[in-house]
Amino acid sequence: MESSGILDAETKVHETPGAHKDELRLWLRLLTCTTLIEGEVRRRLRERFDVTLPRFDLMAQLDRAEEGMTLGELSRRMMVTNGNVTGLAERLVAEGLVARRQSASDRRSHMVRLTDKGRRQFRKMAEEHESWIADLFSGLSQKDVESLLTLLGKAKASTRKSMVAAE
Amino acid sequence: MESSGILDAETKVHETPGAHKDELRLWLRLLTCTTLIEGEVRRRLRERFDVTLPRFDLMAQLDRAEEGMTLGELSRRMMVTNGNVTGLAERLVAEGLVARRQSASDRRSHMVRLTDKGRRQFRKMAEEHESWIADLFSGLSQKDVESLLTLLGKAKASTRKSMVAAE
Repeated sequence: MESSGILDAETKVHETPGAHKDELRLWLRLLTCTTLIEGEVRRRLRERFDVTLPRFDLMAQLDRAEEGMTLGELSRRMMVTNGNVTGLAERLVAEGLVARRQSASDRRSHMVRLTDKGRRQFRKMAEEHESWIADLFSGLSQKDVESLLTLLGKAKASTRKSMVAAE
Repeated sequence: MESSGILDAETKVHETPGAHKDELRLWLRLLTCTTLIEGEVRRRLRERFDVTLPRFDLMAQLDRAEEGMTLGELSRRMMVTNGNVTGLAERLVAEGLVARRQSASDRRSHMVRLTDKGRRQFRKMAEEHESWIADLFSGLSQKDVESLLTLLGKAKASTRKSMVAAE
């Protein structure tokens, strides 16, 4: 989601009759917050490290997996646009930041993992990224943060339940 | 953000030392919620109306503007990926759902608005869309919804303030 000049669309929810205006406003506000933050993170990653968000996201996923993972799993775990995971991974391999896992079995040979150099580079970015997020949320108290974590956890569970029911 | 098989990445935030783990978890949870809901809305729009999310989003922006707006303004207001707003608008014009505004001045001649047909078609989709959102959030109480609106409003204000400070 590119955000550049996003406006307060959620304050403009059309006032047609309907029982679910608050839920709709909530969804638009959720979308606005995410778009704002994602846009800002994207901008800072580019300015500070000349790195795209999908590249950062891919490295973040690999950083969590000591043993590496397959490209398919990597693609499923990506938080932002999937883009071309294979192409992204290829470039990281070419730069010596990601390695294909050496292994006897066929399945494992498709696994990729961060190299030491890749992990060092990612951790450096991750540290700054974490401080940016703390900065963006600095207007929230610790209690606000905890309440949001709880309530968004509830929202996530509700969404998942409704998705399963609709299948 | 395509969501298909998104996993609980926010529960796997790497446990390196750092003071801002809760804020990072909050950001990842926000991103997960948005990605899940956006993916589900995208899927339902396609299945139910054979309509893409950017197309729905574009019509939603025009629905809020009685007088229509310029393509530039439309592009800024889009909540989801900007994509090719001009191309999208062209197709909607070709289908008789959007009209270029008739006017004497140059500036106004670039304005677009929904036709009556376009508005009818959008309102029909919007009604169902609103019920989907209510359904996805049905696990939340009215009080939860109100708390989330308040807290996300605070998060949005905090983000905006931090963005301005960083400029």
